[in-house]
Amino acid sequence: MKNICAVEGVYATGIKEGKYGLALIKAKGTAAAVFTKNRLVAAPVILMKERMEKGVLDGIIVNSGNANVYTGEQGINDAKRMCEIAAEAFGTTPDKVGVASTGVIGRFMKLDIIEDQCSRIKGDLKHDDAAEEKAMRAIMTTDTVPKSAIARRKNFTVAGICKGSGMIAPNMGTMLSFVYTDAEISAADLKRALIPAVNRSFNMVVVDGDTSTNDCCFVTATGLKGKCDYDEFAAALEEVCISLAKQIAADGEGASKMIEVRVTGAKTEEDAAVVARTVIESPLVKTAIYGEDPNWGRLIAAAGRAGVEFDPDAATVSISNEGRADTVVLARKGEILADDVMHPDALAAAKKLMGGKVVVVDIDIACGAFEATAWGCDLTEKYVEINGKYTT
Amino acid sequence: MKNICAVEGVYATGIKEGKYGLALIKAKGTAAAVFTKNRLVAAPVILMKERMEKGVLDGIIVNSGNANVYTGEQGINDAKRMCEIAAEAFGTTPDKVGVASTGVIGRFMKLDIIEDQCSRIKGDLKHDDAAEEKAMRAIMTTDTVPKSAIARRKNFTVAGICKGSGMIAPNMGTMLSFVYTDAEISAADLKRALIPAVNRSFNMVVVDGDTSTNDCCFVTATGLKGKCDYDEFAAALEEVCISLAKQIAADGEGASKMIEVRVTGAKTEEDAAVVARTVIESPLVKTAIYGEDPNWGRLIAAAGRAGVEFDPDAATVSISNEGRADTVVLARKGEILADDVMHPDALAAAKKLMGGKVVVVDIDIACGAFEATAWGCDLTEKYVEINGKYTT
Repeated sequence: MKNICAVEGVYATGIKEGKYGLALIKAKGTAAAVFTKNRLVAAPVILMKERMEKGVLDGIIVNSGNANVYTGEQGINDAKRMCEIAAEAFGTTPDKVGVASTGVIGRFMKLDIIEDQCSRIKGDLKHDDAAEEKAMRAIMTTDTVPKSAIARRKNFTVAGICKGSGMIAPNMGTMLSFVYTDAEISAADLKRALIPAVNRSFNMVVVDGDTSTNDCCFVTATGLKGKCDYDEFAAALEEVCISLAKQIAADGEGASKMIEVRVTGAKTEEDAAVVARTVIESPLVKTAIYGEDPNWGRLIAAAGRAGVEFDPDAATVSISNEGRADTVVLARKGEILADDVMHPDALAAAKKLMGGKVVVVDIDIACGAFEATAWGCDLTEKYVEINGKYTT
Repeated sequence: MKNICAVEGVYATGIKEGKYGLALIKAKGTAAAVFTKNRLVAAPVILMKERMEKGVLDGIIVNSGNANVYTGEQGINDAKRMCEIAAEAFGTTPDKVGVASTGVIGRFMKLDIIEDQCSRIKGDLKHDDAAEEKAMRAIMTTDTVPKSAIARRKNFTVAGICKGSGMIAPNMGTMLSFVYTDAEISAADLKRALIPAVNRSFNMVVVDGDTSTNDCCFVTATGLKGKCDYDEFAAALEEVCISLAKQIAADGEGASKMIEVRVTGAKTEEDAAVVARTVIESPLVKTAIYGEDPNWGRLIAAAGRAGVEFDPDAATVSISNEGRADTVVLARKGEILADDVMHPDALAAAKKLMGGKVVVVDIDIACGAFEATAWGCDLTEKYVEINGKYTT
């Protein structure tokens, strides 16, 4: 059950009061982070992009309820002040504190709430399950479940917590991830491992098409378990990030199903990623999967418009259930293998596979050796209701 | 009321029987066309890309009910056969006949239906309103209204008809446009004028994010009114294409509102177009507009993730009603001007402007002199219902 608090040297706590939450995570070590590519960037992101160049952190403070975006110079000062407040709690200097925010856009921070919450919880920083749970719940906004993941290796552990839900509003829809390891890794190696790990996980989750204003992923290495093999660490980090990303996709707003789209046979990994993202972003694919319809036409037409060169008449499209336990090929090399006229049994079998909570789509574009996987969720009336009728 | 049949030398007819429709449009002249950029391309598109290089047409045959996509070699032969059938009706050779199809994907054409319908209507080719109406209705699929436009100039006319609806399934969702002029224009000049006209019209309509497998726009110049000024012609052609494109956006599946997004102040027209398309594609923007919520945060966050460099703190975002009769500035240069705390009156006024059938969004990204406009529609529960629950 323990995740980040299974990593040596990590102490957490948190509080959630109405829409305002605060988490403190104390962990001293080398550190790296990646941030949103949105042009509209939150104040804490602006601050952290600069401060993380040093590659060290003693802890992180995260608030929910206010994203501190579109708040100008005052927003930057407020983010700095949050670092000062947490530095006092961690017994360090503000330049060694990470800060992240999630919540509504365009409102100034209420620092008195942050100060008050911090003063009340700072004595609770603990290395146990309950502490970790508090931190996870403190940063939730539209999330319906807390999210965490762990990869245990012989001589080190990587674990993380995150918040974010599959199809979400920018004003509440940030993906924040905090990953920890007790392996000893240089800041440069942390950054080197984090970039591909994030590209293959959080960047492959479709959150309304793209990055929010506050998205960030921090990784801190406490080093308490000593040196480890770099490749083994990088693989464990990617595993944790992918697990967190899938949990975000599964927790989509109004979602009834998690969708996994794997594209194989591409000329480059980037090509495969572009096709996978295009398919999983398509409202027609999302609604077809909601309707449990093995609509190969929508799948291949979405792949076809991704801007990647391949021959649709050479492609293969399949549908599977969770873990690819069963698979039905819908179309292969220009031949349709599941339709209501010629292949009604295959169509019925494919429909049945789509009845569960996870639907897996495989598309082999048959022009190379690279692959990529994207995760998302279906599009339901509930999503429209959440984002249209009850918008604030 | 007359549109394409107000152009000298254009004769039309059509028939719609259940889901199968056929239109014939006879018009002898120079011709040009642009086609879908999807990798999955319909057989008639493959054929026409090659044949249109000659730059002449004597007429066009269009069927609805079957898109002739994913049909391999037989599909190409069927498209060729359609040209032969129409050539006999037009009294010309098959190489001077344009062909287009719309309907379901992955089914072979029923040529006997085409032959039968053609033989019954070919005697009805006429230069009048009723004939034009028949042609328009013959090519409709999910369209709820027929679509046509006209631009009259002193010494020539440009007019067109089209089918397509704003958020539509690739298997029924093609945009087909047939535009005519009685000006005398070389095939090269037709092509030169058509490319920017299509880029600023049909390519700025968001049809689930991108081009379908059958999309095409043909233009034919009968030349019966003699030579005209090229620039005057190009402007008239663009006007007709934009009018048709807006009608497609307004006829979106399940749509309750048409949305126009104009981006100004960009470094290039392409930059402006990318930002406008990104905003109008955003499910969060679509649902906010459905909910009549002047959500500047969603608008500016969508613009911010378009991949175009600009400073969100210098941008201005406004909401208007149809024709920009009234406007409310939501945010200007980092300052929020419509919210429920500080500016509730402006917020209420903006909300009111969004009550109509057309919502106009202006975003000035304040870094250059170029602009672009995109059209789309809101995202409603009805859309999910059409594409999810009743998918075929």
